[in-house]
Amino acid sequence: MDIEKELTWIENAIEELSKTAEKDGISWRASYTPEDQKGTELLKAWMEEKGFCTYFDEVGNLFGRIAGKKEEVILTGSHRDTVKNGGKYDGALGVITAIEGISALYQKYGRPEKTVEVAAFCEEEASRFPTGFIGSSGITGELSEKDLNEKDDDGITVKEAMEGAGYYKEGVLPQKRSDIVRTVELHIEQGNVLEYQKKDLGIVTSIVGVHQGYLYFEGHQNHAGTTPMSIRNDPVPVAAELISKMSKWADAKEDRVVCTFGSMSLEPGEANVIPGAMKITFDIRSVDQSLLEEAEALLAYLKAANGEKIKIGIEYLVKDDPIRMDDEGIAIMQKIADEEKYAYMLIDSGAGHDSQLFARYFKSNMIFLPSKDGISHSPEEFTDIRRSADGYRLLKAYMKELAW
Amino acid sequence: MDIEKELTWIENAIEELSKTAEKDGISWRASYTPEDQKGTELLKAWMEEKGFCTYFDEVGNLFGRIAGKKEEVILTGSHRDTVKNGGKYDGALGVITAIEGISALYQKYGRPEKTVEVAAFCEEEASRFPTGFIGSSGITGELSEKDLNEKDDDGITVKEAMEGAGYYKEGVLPQKRSDIVRTVELHIEQGNVLEYQKKDLGIVTSIVGVHQGYLYFEGHQNHAGTTPMSIRNDPVPVAAELISKMSKWADAKEDRVVCTFGSMSLEPGEANVIPGAMKITFDIRSVDQSLLEEAEALLAYLKAANGEKIKIGIEYLVKDDPIRMDDEGIAIMQKIADEEKYAYMLIDSGAGHDSQLFARYFKSNMIFLPSKDGISHSPEEFTDIRRSADGYRLLKAYMKELAW
Repeated sequence: MDIEKELTWIENAIEELSKTAEKDGISWRASYTPEDQKGTELLKAWMEEKGFCTYFDEVGNLFGRIAGKKEEVILTGSHRDTVKNGGKYDGALGVITAIEGISALYQKYGRPEKTVEVAAFCEEEASRFPTGFIGSSGITGELSEKDLNEKDDDGITVKEAMEGAGYYKEGVLPQKRSDIVRTVELHIEQGNVLEYQKKDLGIVTSIVGVHQGYLYFEGHQNHAGTTPMSIRNDPVPVAAELISKMSKWADAKEDRVVCTFGSMSLEPGEANVIPGAMKITFDIRSVDQSLLEEAEALLAYLKAANGEKIKIGIEYLVKDDPIRMDDEGIAIMQKIADEEKYAYMLIDSGAGHDSQLFARYFKSNMIFLPSKDGISHSPEEFTDIRRSADGYRLLKAYMKELAW
Repeated sequence: MDIEKELTWIENAIEELSKTAEKDGISWRASYTPEDQKGTELLKAWMEEKGFCTYFDEVGNLFGRIAGKKEEVILTGSHRDTVKNGGKYDGALGVITAIEGISALYQKYGRPEKTVEVAAFCEEEASRFPTGFIGSSGITGELSEKDLNEKDDDGITVKEAMEGAGYYKEGVLPQKRSDIVRTVELHIEQGNVLEYQKKDLGIVTSIVGVHQGYLYFEGHQNHAGTTPMSIRNDPVPVAAELISKMSKWADAKEDRVVCTFGSMSLEPGEANVIPGAMKITFDIRSVDQSLLEEAEALLAYLKAANGEKIKIGIEYLVKDDPIRMDDEGIAIMQKIADEEKYAYMLIDSGAGHDSQLFARYFKSNMIFLPSKDGISHSPEEFTDIRRSADGYRLLKAYMKELAW
């Protein structure tokens, strides 16, 4: 019953690690802060206890390494940072299950064929800096000078924060790691599809492409009582019509696309004033690139068809293509899951992950464990590792297959 | 060319009065404040220079009285308070033209048949206290103990503010004035209908009824990326659909109703989160009571037809019926305007005014002067009294007809 001990260790480690993120009554492991340092020291100590050699790279990613007979690296792990007032499982579960799983394999099977690394990446969430994916950008060589100069709310740059925590050295941009051949990241789903489908785990097939940005509607501010309908330029009904049409379009696509208008601001935003301007965020995601292109064309059409009374502006902040996980990796996982009769499903990821950067350079895969009630980025976030023990078993079996 | 002197006096008085409202770089004559006291002292001094007997009532309305041969009072004037960062003309123009116009009539024709009072009412705008119309509620006997206990942003009650300025005495609620028989209020239009129709003045036929309140949409907060369209409860498309339908309904009514959704808030209001709740203000106005009832029924229908996924709540904060101005007064004004060939039109008021309270108890009328570009409640508010001199002439001729 080794697995019981392993699950208990994981549960305890989740709790213990979460305590290091507490400050001023909330939980927030922001990158390069004292809370991050405390958490990282704890992870490093655990890795070393379990026989890993540990090191940090230039951007502050923590690695626990077990040298195999070959130099090529199979990497597993997830990010260690959290959102502000976040939960205990997002990121952390992938790091902790990796430490325990690889340690168990190492104890049982000894030195692996290929070198194995367990990673705890920094700054995935963009909760301290506007630029997320800093850890994964580091090992893929995608981190730019511009990223390093982004500032947090206190005006501290990424570079300064890294230096303050003892990592970055001026003038050296991290290079893509050439030794990594495969990655696998276990992560919580952060949605409720697995729970809804009564599955214990998901094998991720794709990570959605994301189109995100602002829609601007420019009208003319006026008194709500004294301006007749026929001579007002009110942006609100025009925005409402656009939201309606985009939502109906997405609804008709049988869950192959999602479309969200999560934030709105009106100028001046008073009950008795016709707004002069309105600004809305849009967030459209799909694993199907053609649907993202369809959405883009529909937005452009609605803008063009609207005429002169209200000017519509469209600004894209994010335009990321969908990313397919490695098909060979998916097949290996499916074979294991079928043989072991795991309650699994193939699932797309609607959220972004470090693995979407990895997948551009390495053969990369992900395993999802169900999120209770689909809740994430909240203190109520919960994933029952005991109920989803098969997800942990799959991570181990897959790593054994790849590295031993 | 006496009228030239009168218009010059009015223009200068507008400028001089506006200076008393300046504080911390903005203009705001909030009721019962030192700025209000300064402005009121100036108005009182002008009234006394021009031969009026002045007095304050319990709530702080300032009156300048010219006793006629009869006790019954013909009242003219407007409110003296302004909105925060407001203009020079809203309210003030009605007070200043009344002082100058009655003074000119008094000089020319001597003691009137009926008693004439010029009034500068306090707190019409609800810019300091949530309850507006305090001055007009005072003389109509509508002021309640509840109104007197409303608080400003610093927690000071209406009652305390009145007492601090030397007006109110505890325990005595003001009674309806039985001596007033007619009122007339000259006011800026605060819209752009007169300008649009190239008229110098408007004779007001009705003041719109107003339905104002909140619409609540209750859904379920979730991740915008990981929650498929088919299992999300997103309040935004439902709200958009409702706004669209209400706006189209209003658009089809040929300017007999206006419908505005001026303020929206989303919970939590982030680009990548499906809002759990949305709150929208509605503001529907018409001089036709049956259209307000139609709007109410349509809102109730849309709420009922929406089903269970998103709960819609409707809260009315204001439900004021339309008020007809006195028909006899309108006829007298029209006769004068036709004879003098004034460029006038009959117009409804889309904004609320003290006169809507007066009209419930006295025979009440209003004259509108055009607002440049329809702008009001702004430092850019402007009404050219010289271009609209006929509006001032109408006020004088009407008051002469009524009181001399």
